Amino acid sequence: MGLFTRDIKTMNDLFVHQLQDVYYAEKQLVKALQEMAGKATDKQLKDGFLAHLDETRNHVQRLEQVFKMHGAAAKAIDCPAIDGIIEEANEVAGDVADKAVLDAALINAGQAAEHYEIARYGSLVAWAKQLGRNDCASILQRTLEEEKAADKKLTQIAESNVNIRAAS
Amino acid sequence: MGLFTRDIKTMNDLFVHQLQDVYYAEKQLVKALQEMAGKATDKQLKDGFLAHLDETRNHVQRLEQVFKMHGAAAKAIDCPAIDGIIEEANEVAGDVADKAVLDAALINAGQAAEHYEIARYGSLVAWAKQLGRNDCASILQRTLEEEKAADKKLTQIAESNVNIRAAS
Repeated sequence: MGLFTRDIKTMNDLFVHQLQDVYYAEKQLVKALQEMAGKATDKQLKDGFLAHLDETRNHVQRLEQVFKMHGAAAKAIDCPAIDGIIEEANEVAGDVADKAVLDAALINAGQAAEHYEIARYGSLVAWAKQLGRNDCASILQRTLEEEKAADKKLTQIAESNVNIRAAS
Repeated sequence: MGLFTRDIKTMNDLFVHQLQDVYYAEKQLVKALQEMAGKATDKQLKDGFLAHLDETRNHVQRLEQVFKMHGAAAKAIDCPAIDGIIEEANEVAGDVADKAVLDAALINAGQAAEHYEIARYGSLVAWAKQLGRNDCASILQRTLEEEKAADKKLTQIAESNVNIRAAS
């Protein structure tokens, strides 16, 4: 990203810029989800992270497909937001002594990442439609729906099990 | 936050830790929303940021109320996630030449912040209930609802106006 160069001139530039940002974020999340699955104690939570890891690998491929369809290079640019979310997840995880409380903290960290993606894919879908790229929008929409489902699944694991154990 | 000290031992510790993280985030967002309102060109967007700035000042006070009710010191701790989200907002805003495209980028930045807060307040409400603090949960829930409403309002401004102008 070129500071002071003002190289985003059109909505199409903004769309491609945001694709590159999310491409970086998804790649970082592939690594982070592996670590989170490794730290999780609750079996349902561990399985949930591993299932979403598979989905996240698909999201990377879908972004590559969208780059190609849109005639843009699949390039990842730094995304300080996801770096901060992951840094915070690692810091909190390192601070938690109790395994059940750690599971609750991991769910919270996972949901921060999901919500980041929900916000970004929401904009990407809207922008793609506005740019007349309904083909790109429908691929991005599939990922958006999976991020929302992953977030709901984490809420369900928290409420049905993890939070109860963590508070006991 | 003390790395390697493992000072989060209970769900109550995690709850207070997250309150401190969100307290920092809300205070940073008071500053960021002022800047975003200053950069916005679309009147509805500028007014939306200013209205949410007032709400955000209330969110800071509500957190202070929850700290007090819960017998914890109102302390802000570093939150790399919101720092990253705001850093990214500033970087993108500095890269955008066209005012209508900048408005679209500002909405995207605002929604990333809202979604961060939706994730965190969602956990805080669930944890407060689990800890038997329904009084704290109901205050945090009010803020959560306002964050969700602010996110929806930004979507509505984007779809009804800003994205159309940005793509034209």
